[in-house]
Amino acid sequence: MKLCDLPRLDPGSDEVVVEVAGCGVCHTDIAFAYGDVPTRHALPLILGHEISGRVVAAGENAGAWLGRSVIVPAVIPCGVCPACQAGRATICRQQFMPGNDGNGGFATHVLVPTRGLCAVPEPLPSGLTLEMLSVVADAVSTPYEAIRRSQLGAEDVVVIVGAGGVGGFGVQIAAALGAAVVAIDRDRERLDLAARYGAGLVLDAASTELKGLKAAVRTFLKESGRKGIGLKIFEMSGTPAGQATAFGLLDYGAYLGVVGFASKPIEIRLSNLMALDATARGNWGCPPDQYPAALQMVLAGKIALAPFIELHALEEAPAILEAVAKHSVRRRAILKPGQRKEKQ
Amino acid sequence: MKLCDLPRLDPGSDEVVVEVAGCGVCHTDIAFAYGDVPTRHALPLILGHEISGRVVAAGENAGAWLGRSVIVPAVIPCGVCPACQAGRATICRQQFMPGNDGNGGFATHVLVPTRGLCAVPEPLPSGLTLEMLSVVADAVSTPYEAIRRSQLGAEDVVVIVGAGGVGGFGVQIAAALGAAVVAIDRDRERLDLAARYGAGLVLDAASTELKGLKAAVRTFLKESGRKGIGLKIFEMSGTPAGQATAFGLLDYGAYLGVVGFASKPIEIRLSNLMALDATARGNWGCPPDQYPAALQMVLAGKIALAPFIELHALEEAPAILEAVAKHSVRRRAILKPGQRKEKQ
Repeated sequence: MKLCDLPRLDPGSDEVVVEVAGCGVCHTDIAFAYGDVPTRHALPLILGHEISGRVVAAGENAGAWLGRSVIVPAVIPCGVCPACQAGRATICRQQFMPGNDGNGGFATHVLVPTRGLCAVPEPLPSGLTLEMLSVVADAVSTPYEAIRRSQLGAEDVVVIVGAGGVGGFGVQIAAALGAAVVAIDRDRERLDLAARYGAGLVLDAASTELKGLKAAVRTFLKESGRKGIGLKIFEMSGTPAGQATAFGLLDYGAYLGVVGFASKPIEIRLSNLMALDATARGNWGCPPDQYPAALQMVLAGKIALAPFIELHALEEAPAILEAVAKHSVRRRAILKPGQRKEKQ
Repeated sequence: MKLCDLPRLDPGSDEVVVEVAGCGVCHTDIAFAYGDVPTRHALPLILGHEISGRVVAAGENAGAWLGRSVIVPAVIPCGVCPACQAGRATICRQQFMPGNDGNGGFATHVLVPTRGLCAVPEPLPSGLTLEMLSVVADAVSTPYEAIRRSQLGAEDVVVIVGAGGVGGFGVQIAAALGAAVVAIDRDRERLDLAARYGAGLVLDAASTELKGLKAAVRTFLKESGRKGIGLKIFEMSGTPAGQATAFGLLDYGAYLGVVGFASKPIEIRLSNLMALDATARGNWGCPPDQYPAALQMVLAGKIALAPFIELHALEEAPAILEAVAKHSVRRRAILKPGQRKEKQ
């Protein structure tokens, strides 16, 4: 991983150059950076798919975007293939994912297609900046989509496993939808934050075995008085331990949303899905048409960003990626290009 | 496990006594018999939940059933709890499962509630007998429900892993719905049967690695010309190896129905569900309201039973259960009470 100067970007007719305000660091980047998962575009490649910024150059059909603040979706589907036409945009095989199919956002500038771009209305509410909104591109929109697919409502009890840089937003989204929320983590500070931002119960997996977690969730479920059928569980830790906990919490008719990414396999009894009549479902990001609604929850103050993020200079990328890989970063890290910006 | 004489059964007002024509042997019975999974009712208990027979005694509200031939659903929901009312009958916590919540069908007679009983229209089509229809109670209806939930249609490509006593029916159900069917097994005879009963491609997992299976399925998918989005895979082997294969075959947007039961855990990368935007779903049997449609497929000749079953005397139960446990029985075994019947 190294910092380098690249030629000025030249947008095609339906492309724009976005001056990066911020780009969040995701566990998928870690898997790419450490070789656990290959990028679809050959190396060398600029990673980073959680991008916000301002359009500073536009192709001939893209003039309307010039000067606009935008969030770049982590997954940009083609819009015309059978999967896109069938409403399954996230599995589009012609999708463009910055930092995977081409250069991404750990840079001062990034070249992206205009399709799927999410316009950011300005001025922003007080306390929000454009770089903070980068996390909407994945850390907010991906749990948003996972929760949307589960048809979560006010009668549901939801368990969020991992209340970090993704789960902290998951807790808030579920709470905003009126569900009764349990947050599970191994970090006391994260749990305290989750309790302040919507969790009705927080459980420390560092000090409580699965059996104890299950019992506590069941008691909470009973006392919640919610009438939803089946627990809704979301794995947002991106760790094998979190996945084992989430799968272990499955109960009759439960739904498990697999949001976090972990390369390492885990040992599970797959037949529990059968014995419990349960469902496990994953989502590869979020279709661009859901971004405005996710962004709106942030702008309306239903999802607080500030307590769940931390800003770092782009130059710190190697150290930050290492820290994220070690799960020693409590919040979602955002890389922010600094003084090298004027070189473009 | 032993054969014994029990007192005559006395039906309550909404109950009937069914003289057992046949009772299929399921891997769930094996898990119960060998202690891998505890029965919900305390031991000693008569196992067996795949029952057909004739009503020979009826409680005061059940007179209309007297003399009728019936299939007893493997899972009999209460019909009134919130789960039942919400259309999630298979997770009803007040459900009665013969051979789990009370005495089952490895017997001459069984006492069951009338709710959910599936009437068998008579006379039966030539080649079918009432004891053969016992497999509709689980081995046919459970894959039927799994396939129904997946919304399988004529534009889909489906992979059935395990073409034995359950998968053989799965292949036929999927083919009857017009899907292009791949059957995978480790047994040549089963594969030949699957090819004769609807599979467009059969693959031998004993001689082909996962990579080869994947490649063959992809080629078949391309050549099938089907436009369905995402492969639909059903694990019907009830073995850890079959489960690993089924999970390993997941591709973008795929759906995995977990039908077979295996006690042993397997090692999987749960995040594949996320990376592939895939779903894994299990079903605990089939709601009674789906039985008539499943039975109709059998009566209409869309599902052949004879090549996929084998009849044994009830007295052979210990040996048959052992053989099923060792996966050395190719077909669905049905236990049929014999000369002891008149003792009731």
